[in-house]
Amino acid sequence: MSCSYGEKFKITIFGQSHSDAIGVVIDGIPAGIRLDIEKICDFLSRRAPGQNKFSTPRKEADNPEIVSGLVDGVTCGAPICALIHNSNRHSSDYDNLKKIPRPSHADFSAYMKHNGFNDIRGGGNFSGRMTAPLCFAGAVAMQILEEKNIFVGAHIQKIADVNDKKFDEVNVTKSDFESARKNDLTVLDNSIEKAMLERIENARKNLDSVGGVIECAVLGLPAGIGEPMFDGVENEISKVVFAIPAIKGIEFGNGFTCAGLTGSQNNDSFEIREGKIKTKTNNHGGILGGISSGMPIIFRVAVKPTPSIALEQDSVSLETKSNEKLSIAGRHDPCIVPRAVPCVEAAAAVAIINLM
Amino acid sequence: MSCSYGEKFKITIFGQSHSDAIGVVIDGIPAGIRLDIEKICDFLSRRAPGQNKFSTPRKEADNPEIVSGLVDGVTCGAPICALIHNSNRHSSDYDNLKKIPRPSHADFSAYMKHNGFNDIRGGGNFSGRMTAPLCFAGAVAMQILEEKNIFVGAHIQKIADVNDKKFDEVNVTKSDFESARKNDLTVLDNSIEKAMLERIENARKNLDSVGGVIECAVLGLPAGIGEPMFDGVENEISKVVFAIPAIKGIEFGNGFTCAGLTGSQNNDSFEIREGKIKTKTNNHGGILGGISSGMPIIFRVAVKPTPSIALEQDSVSLETKSNEKLSIAGRHDPCIVPRAVPCVEAAAAVAIINLM
Amino acid sequence: MSCSYGEKFKITIFGQSHSDAIGVVIDGIPAGIRLDIEKICDFLSRRAPGQNKFSTPRKEADNPEIVSGLVDGVTCGAPICALIHNSNRHSSDYDNLKKIPRPSHADFSAYMKHNGFNDIRGGGNFSGRMTAPLCFAGAVAMQILEEKNIFVGAHIQKIADVNDKKFDEVNVTKSDFESARKNDLTVLDNSIEKAMLERIENARKNLDSVGGVIECAVLGLPAGIGEPMFDGVENEISKVVFAIPAIKGIEFGNGFTCAGLTGSQNNDSFEIREGKIKTKTNNHGGILGGISSGMPIIFRVAVKPTPSIALEQDSVSLETKSNEKLSIAGRHDPCIVPRAVPCVEAAAAVAIINLM
Amino acid sequence: MSCSYGEKFKITIFGQSHSDAIGVVIDGIPAGIRLDIEKICDFLSRRAPGQNKFSTPRKEADNPEIVSGLVDGVTCGAPICALIHNSNRHSSDYDNLKKIPRPSHADFSAYMKHNGFNDIRGGGNFSGRMTAPLCFAGAVAMQILEEKNIFVGAHIQKIADVNDKKFDEVNVTKSDFESARKNDLTVLDNSIEKAMLERIENARKNLDSVGGVIECAVLGLPAGIGEPMFDGVENEISKVVFAIPAIKGIEFGNGFTCAGLTGSQNNDSFEIREGKIKTKTNNHGGILGGISSGMPIIFRVAVKPTPSIALEQDSVSLETKSNEKLSIAGRHDPCIVPRAVPCVEAAAAVAIINLM
Repeated sequence: MSCSYGEKFKITIFGQSHSDAIGVVIDGIPAGIRLDIEKICDFLSRRAPGQNKFSTPRKEADNPEIVSGLVDGVTCGAPICALIHNSNRHSSDYDNLKKIPRPSHADFSAYMKHNGFNDIRGGGNFSGRMTAPLCFAGAVAMQILEEKNIFVGAHIQKIADVNDKKFDEVNVTKSDFESARKNDLTVLDNSIEKAMLERIENARKNLDSVGGVIECAVLGLPAGIGEPMFDGVENEISKVVFAIPAIKGIEFGNGFTCAGLTGSQNNDSFEIREGKIKTKTNNHGGILGGISSGMPIIFRVAVKPTPSIALEQDSVSLETKSNEKLSIAGRHDPCIVPRAVPCVEAAAAVAIINLM
Repeated sequence: MSCSYGEKFKITIFGQSHSDAIGVVIDGIPAGIRLDIEKICDFLSRRAPGQNKFSTPRKEADNPEIVSGLVDGVTCGAPICALIHNSNRHSSDYDNLKKIPRPSHADFSAYMKHNGFNDIRGGGNFSGRMTAPLCFAGAVAMQILEEKNIFVGAHIQKIADVNDKKFDEVNVTKSDFESARKNDLTVLDNSIEKAMLERIENARKNLDSVGGVIECAVLGLPAGIGEPMFDGVENEISKVVFAIPAIKGIEFGNGFTCAGLTGSQNNDSFEIREGKIKTKTNNHGGILGGISSGMPIIFRVAVKPTPSIALEQDSVSLETKSNEKLSIAGRHDPCIVPRAVPCVEAAAAVAIINLM
Repeated sequence: MSCSYGEKFKITIFGQSHSDAIGVVIDGIPAGIRLDIEKICDFLSRRAPGQNKFSTPRKEADNPEIVSGLVDGVTCGAPICALIHNSNRHSSDYDNLKKIPRPSHADFSAYMKHNGFNDIRGGGNFSGRMTAPLCFAGAVAMQILEEKNIFVGAHIQKIADVNDKKFDEVNVTKSDFESARKNDLTVLDNSIEKAMLERIENARKNLDSVGGVIECAVLGLPAGIGEPMFDGVENEISKVVFAIPAIKGIEFGNGFTCAGLTGSQNNDSFEIREGKIKTKTNNHGGILGGISSGMPIIFRVAVKPTPSIALEQDSVSLETKSNEKLSIAGRHDPCIVPRAVPCVEAAAAVAIINLM
Repeated sequence: MSCSYGEKFKITIFGQSHSDAIGVVIDGIPAGIRLDIEKICDFLSRRAPGQNKFSTPRKEADNPEIVSGLVDGVTCGAPICALIHNSNRHSSDYDNLKKIPRPSHADFSAYMKHNGFNDIRGGGNFSGRMTAPLCFAGAVAMQILEEKNIFVGAHIQKIADVNDKKFDEVNVTKSDFESARKNDLTVLDNSIEKAMLERIENARKNLDSVGGVIECAVLGLPAGIGEPMFDGVENEISKVVFAIPAIKGIEFGNGFTCAGLTGSQNNDSFEIREGKIKTKTNNHGGILGGISSGMPIIFRVAVKPTPSIALEQDSVSLETKSNEKLSIAGRHDPCIVPRAVPCVEAAAAVAIINLM
């Protein structure tokens, strides 16, 4: 496994869904920063389960316990270790999964990698729960970035066939993030919220699930950040984003759309605007040659539908190598897109802070 | 800059478009492997310019000179360094770009990063030419992977509005790669080749360019490969792929399509097939939880239209901070998608060999 | 700070002397290994304080709490996180040190690095206490190495002016380690133990301290291990050993002695012994060109006398920039060499396992 | 092999003694620095062979060819690649070594690591010649450090039984370096130079060799530099220094001497001197807790006698596994200590620049 990311702001994530605790070590935070713990908890609560009818009924406080790195609430230069305890575990729900892998889960691939010794309970270290420490790290990163007037925000751009409008890729502001977060679902256009909620509720009723797309923006990043060829802005954001389970694609700026355009349609002309060099459009998503251009960083990720569904599915027995039917019990979100929004923000923040 | 990637098969790329040479150091190759240099040259020639009417008229042999790491053609355990000399340089073509950045190029962002000291000639170290050493490394990686019956192949899945068929994500074979490479354009369905060539030719005539999509498959990778959370198969392939200039998006398996599906539509059931555990479908693109499932790895990348177009464009003067018009001289591909195909294969091979 | 080491067996250490807990995350342990926790605790107890009259009276159980990475005592492939709680803290002992740095401690250099925000209590993250998580990691590494018949052992080779005999560099065996550990001080020649204990007791009575030398051997390492130029056996052992506070030098084989010899005196001839290629002597300490030779790895480290002494010392005020007198209260070992023995073993084990 | 070191100033060294070229890639140099190439060549010439009667008669210009990273002599932000061509090769000298390993050389350990495929010619990539690219990188690092008033200098502190005086560890200055370099041997006290030269000449006459000790100082490093636990100043200097073949030990400050002292003898009191916080003595060698204290960094390394001696030696046949006699032909220094002086300086410079 490789549970560490980054050089300047290095995070090391540990734990399994049903171990005593999960957590993260953050190394590289300058000394002398007063962390706003309440703000971190607020951020974690955006990811936490049990918040509303369309997320899993498993309720966990997810309050982090910071065991090192702070003196009287201020960073001391030593690594921060934060623990999030795992209470409320129903490990017996997972007993039969040891033998019959869930379709589109990591059960089978992890079984092959770890010779059957992987922790199957709650998805082990492949659980979506492992994004909680990522969110802790992201929340810390954001507090440091915000001191430099860099802001990260994401919204649900699509669930099933219902689309939110996209960010205005040239003029997106921090207040766009803030209004979106006031809605039940983090959307820009609250006129589509009801339709999205219906898609989720329908999936729940049908013992099924739905996927979606999350769009994220990073504002205020100065031009000149990024370390190509291999540590450019796209390389690093992708590397962290794919640590979030269920993400299957990422595109920057207009992304896959550019494949159908001509150069004259796709190129972003420069102009002097308010005395500064800006591009008129932002098809490039704020990144040119792997380096920030000073325009908003914009990217979108595809989130697959929750693979744990209550409908009976076809699988196999790992023991007898025969075909089997599988019905998954336990508690699962019919749509993980809403809870993945802060995870995507956290991933972006962690990647960006490492490039600065 | 960050010009190195990998731990087990570490590559370090150097050079600029118009420096004396570009090249790559590869560390971690086991001793005792006889490299097939001719095969490496053949691979490089798939990327090389000047091959046909739709690529840049700049002709370069791109024959690598291996200055270290081999004894009588066999690896000796020391790092391999390969140089590719830059002949045929017309640096004066780029003189005015020092002052007026090309839209959707790295000129401006690199200027900001390097305080104006970046090498503007030929795009410097942001040039597509820097993919030649990546291809060298990829060709070496492929020779080692092929010994393990792992094969990497890509094709042009789309140019402008013309689509090739996609790989059969369950049954794709090595011979699919081989037939595609026999066509003028690397496509699976040669009935669409003429239309693609027309789109490129039209762009050229219009002093414009077109983008596209490349689809890549990795065959034979056993189940259990990948190091999540941060070094899973998706994380690593993405990290290397975004080292290729002009790539703006990547998706694995059905990618962004999964966002519109339900779990029951998207999940890939397991079954016993020829005595082995396989999935019936392969929406997951051969990767579950960041770990290979034993099914073909499938991913697609979006390639933007060549930003260097002969049409006059709006830009600015970096000196006077005023708006300017820009006409780009020099030699440029109206479509870089065909030459990017081996680069994507190389990126995949380098990422995969590092995970094994 | 940089609290991580290693690639294959990556350790990340966190905590301060007086934070809630200290601990370590270990990533890269194969799944399916049953850890012998009692053996780990035994190893930690060799480092723990309060064991006898010549170590600090601060008593801590140092029992690790393993919060992740195990299922029913067996590794599951996920990172192991072990916590060691800090009880028995007397933080007020350290109040005046915030202003007056202790000579030959990290107080001043850490103050300069962290702008005065470093955690001064108990030495913060510069405390010798931070070797406890290193020992945990080393104990785990040793269990894996022992499965491959590789054994690590160290002894006190010198305290003040009293010398233990050195390892027989050609014929040292595992039983040499075991007999040494049965003594009150880990020495090979117990006839010198009394004199060593007297030197320590004298230092204690004089409110002073004494230093020493520890010699360590790694047995059973096959020839061919090591990754020069930069990750050779000497490079890696040194890198980890200098993570132990108070180590000021390291030498391999005959070390500094070789500087006074001729080549014909220093060279280790090869011979066939019991059918295998061995060297007749082992001045090279089992390492040639950064790679193991199959002979025992032998190295020695210099441990400085405990800098915390009760005698009044000259220092300065960081606030007033004036000369000051300092008397250090608190609990301190008159000699840390005995407790450093398992730390050196742990460092060697962690370095070696990363090279395999 | 692991041929890369560093993050911020990353060097990647390639080549073998008898490959077409050896060289180094340096990544992370800021753009806009005019490199003084003549100064780099002067530095390389201090290491180069064939300079005087006590070094090997193999003469090589060692003039580096910089193939990338510069535009008109100024860094452009892209990695610098420098080649040093290998002329004057007598590979046949090494034919019998393929079968009979030289005592105290890497021949045997490399054979075991690389299954006999290692490049034996001239020592392959284990040759002292590989320090030439290290010196190139060090010379570049020093130019950047000198801009910050940080200076690195070393001298021969001992050859055989002849000792130079040591640096004044509190008051050493840059002019001490400069006067030492004016001598035939880089010594502080030129009254001992003749005796040292005699020891070398005697060794040569006796077909033997001698070792020695090099002492190095880093001046002007501000307090607060270093990243403990694992990337402290001692950890990093050691890691790079042990990349130089023949180094068998390193000690910082008073090093192994501290093992025989009491705390009250060894501790370095603080005092206010010229308005600044300094230590009265410098037994700690400028490093406390892995972090610079603002005092001169002082360390010494042990250099073993050249293992290649013309005297007949005992060895074995790798083919027949029988005892054999070996007489080494070829060209070898009777003492490599003089040529190792700039290598140690380069190692220190590369380690220090990575910590800043």
